[in-house]
Amino acid sequence: MNELVEKILSGDIRTVAKVIRDIDDGVGDIRTILKDLYPYTGRAYVIGITGSPGVGKSTLVDKMISHLRDMRKTVGVLAVDPTSPFSGGAILGDRVRMQKHSLDEGVFIRSLATRGHFGGLTQSTRSAIDVLDAMGKDYILVETVGVGQDEVDVMKIVHTTIVVVIPGMGDDIQAIKAGILEVGDIFVVNKADREGADKTVQELQMMLEMNEDKFEKGLWKPPILKVEALFDKGVKELLDEVNRHAQYLKEHWEGLTLRRQKKKVKEELKEMVKGRLIETVFQELIRSGDFERSVEEIVEGKVDPYTASERLVLPRLRLNSQGNMSVN
Amino acid sequence: MNELVEKILSGDIRTVAKVIRDIDDGVGDIRTILKDLYPYTGRAYVIGITGSPGVGKSTLVDKMISHLRDMRKTVGVLAVDPTSPFSGGAILGDRVRMQKHSLDEGVFIRSLATRGHFGGLTQSTRSAIDVLDAMGKDYILVETVGVGQDEVDVMKIVHTTIVVVIPGMGDDIQAIKAGILEVGDIFVVNKADREGADKTVQELQMMLEMNEDKFEKGLWKPPILKVEALFDKGVKELLDEVNRHAQYLKEHWEGLTLRRQKKKVKEELKEMVKGRLIETVFQELIRSGDFERSVEEIVEGKVDPYTASERLVLPRLRLNSQGNMSVN
Repeated sequence: MNELVEKILSGDIRTVAKVIRDIDDGVGDIRTILKDLYPYTGRAYVIGITGSPGVGKSTLVDKMISHLRDMRKTVGVLAVDPTSPFSGGAILGDRVRMQKHSLDEGVFIRSLATRGHFGGLTQSTRSAIDVLDAMGKDYILVETVGVGQDEVDVMKIVHTTIVVVIPGMGDDIQAIKAGILEVGDIFVVNKADREGADKTVQELQMMLEMNEDKFEKGLWKPPILKVEALFDKGVKELLDEVNRHAQYLKEHWEGLTLRRQKKKVKEELKEMVKGRLIETVFQELIRSGDFERSVEEIVEGKVDPYTASERLVLPRLRLNSQGNMSVN
Repeated sequence: MNELVEKILSGDIRTVAKVIRDIDDGVGDIRTILKDLYPYTGRAYVIGITGSPGVGKSTLVDKMISHLRDMRKTVGVLAVDPTSPFSGGAILGDRVRMQKHSLDEGVFIRSLATRGHFGGLTQSTRSAIDVLDAMGKDYILVETVGVGQDEVDVMKIVHTTIVVVIPGMGDDIQAIKAGILEVGDIFVVNKADREGADKTVQELQMMLEMNEDKFEKGLWKPPILKVEALFDKGVKELLDEVNRHAQYLKEHWEGLTLRRQKKKVKEELKEMVKGRLIETVFQELIRSGDFERSVEEIVEGKVDPYTASERLVLPRLRLNSQGNMSVN
């Protein structure tokens, strides 16, 4: 067995940190390591926490860590922040806030930024989850920073998705919730001491009921919890709901792990195929100089980008005489 | 010339609406139309408006339209909302709010959602911009709803990016701005009558100064404007700044249009190649049943997803004996 793999399985923090950094930067022979780790994954329970900036996700994660540690569970945290160009995606504030856990060996916190390469955010997050899973963490918390499509995609690969909102988000509350409503297993109205908390709960309830048929939630009815993360109110109850959801999943997946659940596997494989495809082709496009040449031609007005992209892509695929793909 | 193309060039609203819907849904022979339209693009000035939900982007866009119409300019608006699974991505509130322009022939408003197919948000937005450009709109306003990486990518293909924030966004203000700071040409502190507006301006100023070296902004120093969009305060001044930025671009791009600027062309071609690649390969993967078969094998534990994705991708690419790509 690969030495790195052994070290990860034994929980060596420095190796885990290095491998996750390599995943994030898209360097090193990550695939071989992940293949070897794969048989050791599928044991951790993965919780996603998403919501707009400012709703207090980090504070909530902080308190969740404390409760899980009280229960003697080990915790891995991934702060997914694709929009930050600074310090490799780590948000200083979060780091500072989470510092109190930094001396606790049972907690491992890392940021993922995944800028500038082609694997995609979901794939990097998936890989980082695998590493934390293989190192033996009981729970893995995946916190997103943005609220775009990328973040929604990330939420599709966790066990339980917690969507955090706050009272009084105004006109745009519908816009915010539309996309993440679909992926939310539990809804948290944080800062619930603020005016309008009950109204927000009601609005959420209405939206969930209105769209019940769209979400294939089956028998799971997403609960809505009022929480004051800052004062640790409602966080224990939130974790109870997470466990209730875990029970629900177990019954409905007939004991299958996250990695084996068909819908998640589909999502995951799609991302991996995309990543592999784009990476391989772009390496060659850049190495050969063809990409750069096409850029020049477009700039000079010799060709339109639609035709140029066709000329770059099609000769690199195995197509048969009908223009369809031929695989031998 | 294709009949549809002629109709678009003559400004036929129904045809434009249909083509943009096809772009959004990923159906129809869009590429041929876009190729034919290409020579007629590059005349419109494209303004991006981005920021978290709740900062009042729609209201700002609404007022910008009014001012541009007062100047006898025609306006196209694209509301980009990848996170909405409802009503084809159109946000009801926005539609209602913008209704007053609906009888004005000089204004054309459409939403883009781009869910469920592979071309990608940036590419669809680029294509929709081309259509509005070819139909003769003077200004095209691109408003994003989310604040994820997708939205940042969209902002890379416009001329001038306006980043909207509001006072008192709390702890996460740094997180919000980190990603979009890089793409922002003009910053707007909206709802500037609220407490803390000056503090927010100062914070923005500090962040811009701190990171000056990172952004290759050249000689352009992004201005920060206090605006009260709801009361139409500062919107005229904002458009003045947009024009100032347009002047700056003209001088520094030596008269090149957006479509010919090398950095933008690179970004655009990258997206188009990705889209074309993924679309072509996935069509075949699904048609042949190979994707589905791999999913089953992973579910049954016969193969790990890393190996499976390799087996799906590599035989579909033209690789030489060294495992590198070979192009003939």
